[in-house]
Amino acid sequence: MRDTNRAWYFAARPDGEPTMDSFEFREGDRPDPEDGDLLVRVRYLSVDPYMRGRMRDSASYAEPWAVGDALQGRVVGEVVESESEAYESGDLVTGNGTWADYAVLDADDAAPVDPAVAPPPAYLGVLGMPGRTAYFGLLDVAEPRPGDTVVVSGAAGAVGSTVGQIAKLNGCRVVGFAGTDEKADWLTGDLGFDAAINYETTDDYRAALDDTAPDGVDVYFDNVGGPITDAVFTRLNVDARVAVCGQIAHYNAETTPTGPRKLPSLIAPRARVEGLLVTDYAPRFDAATERLSEWVAAGDLSHRETVVEGLENAPDAFLGLFSGENVGKQVVKVSE
Amino acid sequence: MRDTNRAWYFAARPDGEPTMDSFEFREGDRPDPEDGDLLVRVRYLSVDPYMRGRMRDSASYAEPWAVGDALQGRVVGEVVESESEAYESGDLVTGNGTWADYAVLDADDAAPVDPAVAPPPAYLGVLGMPGRTAYFGLLDVAEPRPGDTVVVSGAAGAVGSTVGQIAKLNGCRVVGFAGTDEKADWLTGDLGFDAAINYETTDDYRAALDDTAPDGVDVYFDNVGGPITDAVFTRLNVDARVAVCGQIAHYNAETTPTGPRKLPSLIAPRARVEGLLVTDYAPRFDAATERLSEWVAAGDLSHRETVVEGLENAPDAFLGLFSGENVGKQVVKVSE
Repeated sequence: MRDTNRAWYFAARPDGEPTMDSFEFREGDRPDPEDGDLLVRVRYLSVDPYMRGRMRDSASYAEPWAVGDALQGRVVGEVVESESEAYESGDLVTGNGTWADYAVLDADDAAPVDPAVAPPPAYLGVLGMPGRTAYFGLLDVAEPRPGDTVVVSGAAGAVGSTVGQIAKLNGCRVVGFAGTDEKADWLTGDLGFDAAINYETTDDYRAALDDTAPDGVDVYFDNVGGPITDAVFTRLNVDARVAVCGQIAHYNAETTPTGPRKLPSLIAPRARVEGLLVTDYAPRFDAATERLSEWVAAGDLSHRETVVEGLENAPDAFLGLFSGENVGKQVVKVSE
Repeated sequence: MRDTNRAWYFAARPDGEPTMDSFEFREGDRPDPEDGDLLVRVRYLSVDPYMRGRMRDSASYAEPWAVGDALQGRVVGEVVESESEAYESGDLVTGNGTWADYAVLDADDAAPVDPAVAPPPAYLGVLGMPGRTAYFGLLDVAEPRPGDTVVVSGAAGAVGSTVGQIAKLNGCRVVGFAGTDEKADWLTGDLGFDAAINYETTDDYRAALDDTAPDGVDVYFDNVGGPITDAVFTRLNVDARVAVCGQIAHYNAETTPTGPRKLPSLIAPRARVEGLLVTDYAPRFDAATERLSEWVAAGDLSHRETVVEGLENAPDAFLGLFSGENVGKQVVKVSE
C-alpha cells in the first residue's frame, strides 16, 4: 500500500470552458478514517457534467467547491480500513469520495459493489447515480406510456443511453440524438433505439425529427439544451412531457444564454416541462438499483463505460465530457 | 326588431400588430336558426387575446379564421327565435356567436344568464371562459397550497384578476403585475392582492419581486411572457409551478421571439411549467361556473368589465387588448 496519497484539488474557478488551470495535482498523506468511515483504495472515479456547476461561486443544487478543496466525486474502491461494522477490509464498495488514490467514504452513504452483477465501473454508470437519474427522470417525471415517441438528447451518455433503453422496455418508440456515427450505431444496434440522429452531421433537426418521429414527440428527455432542444419543442404532441435533466450545452456559459422562447409553444400542446434532481428520490434509490441490476443481469439493459487510465488524467476525462468524447459513462481508472 | 344584421368579417391576415385592415363591417340579412339553434339579439360581445391566434394561417388550439369569415366570439344575448326546447324567446343566454347584431347559437353549447347573480357582461368574464380559465388553470395546473407565494402577470385582466382572488381564497400571498397605477390600486384594493407591480413604471422587475415576494415564487400564473416572465423565472422556489395560460407579449410576433433560455433555471428548483387550455376541462365547466357564481354572490370574488359601446367599435376594443386598455374583462355593448 502506498503511504502517500495523490489527489486533485480545485485550483481556480474557470471562466467559460474549463481548462487545466482549474486543477492542481498534489501528493500528501493518506487520510485517516474516523468513526463510521471507510478508507478505500480508489479503483474507479466518476467525472460528471454536473461538476461544472460546482465550479461556480453560486449556490445551486450541488454545493459549490471552494478553491483549494479536494475534488469530490463518486468512486468505486476497495476497503483498506473500516471504521464501520457494515464493511470490512477487502470489500468492494461505491460512495462519495475524492479524486485521489485513497478516499474516505461515509459508510452510511456507501453501497456494495458486486462484480458478479456487472463490472465495477458500471456502478458509477448504469448501476450508479446516472442509472438512477435515468430511472426516476423517465419513469417518475416523464411518465412514458406504451406507444409514446420518446426523444432523448445526449443519448449516448450514461444517463441518455439508460433512458432510451428503459423507454424501450416500456413499449415506446425511441429516438436519440448523439454526436458521432459510432454513437448513433451503438444506439440503434446494441441499445435497440428505433432511430438515432447524428447532430454533428445533420443540418435540419426538425426535418430529421419528422423522419424519425413522424407522429410527433410525446416525451423529451433533455440532457443537452441548445438547438436540439429548440427543434424538439416545435414537435411536441398534446400532453407532451419534457424532463429537464441536464443542459450541458449551456454549462460553460458565463452569461444567461438566449434562444427561441419556448413558453408560447407549450400552450397548444398543453405540454409539461419539469426539472429533475435525482437526489429527491433518495428514499427509493435501493429499489431502483435493484431493478436496474435485474435488467442488466437479464441482458435487457446494455451499458458501456469509457475508461481513461490513470488518476493523473482525471481532469482530461472531465474536460472531454464537454466535447462528447465519452460513449456511455466516462470513468477514470485509478488502480487495478 | 331590425330586419337587417350588421356584422364584422375577417378581411385580411395581419402582419405583426393587427390594424383595422383586418376588419370589414357589412350589413346583410338576419341569419335563420336551424333545428337546435337559437337566434339571439346580441347584447354583449367578448373580445379576447387568444383571437389573435385565430388570425394566423396555421393550425393551433383555436381553429384559424378564413379570410372572409364572420368573426366569432362569445356573446350574451336575448333569444328572439328558438329552435330548441331548452330555451324560449326572451331568455338571456351566453354562447358562441358572432360579432353581429344577431347571432345564431347552438343551444347545446349555450348557458342561461341570471342577472340576479351578476350583470350580464360578467358572463363573458368572471362567470365565462376567462373565469373558468382562471379556476382550472390555477387550481388544477398550478395547484396552490396555503402559504404559497403566487405571482400573476396580466393581473388586472379578466383571467389574472380572477386567478389572484382565487389564490387569496386558498390562503396564498398574491403579487400581481399590471400596467397602470389604477390597475395596481384595484388589485391591492378591491381585489385584496398583497402587492402589485406597475411594470410600466418599474425598471428592475427582479428587485421588485425581491420586495414583494421576499420568500420567492411558488406559483407563477403567466398570461403575458416577455421580460416579466424572464424575471419571475429567476425567483422560482423548489417545486415551483408555472401555469402558461397566455403570452400576449408575443402574440403579434411574426418570427419566433428570443429571450433568456429558461430550461437551465428549472433544474435546481425542479420547477414544473405547463401549458393550459380551458377547453380540456369542459366536462367540469358547470361545476366551475357554479362555484364562481357562489363566490361572486358572496362578495368573495370581485370583477370589473370594461365596456366599449357599439358594435361598430368592436375592432377597437379588440386592438386595445394589446395595449392593455382594459381593466378586467373587455366587452362590447351591442344593444340594450
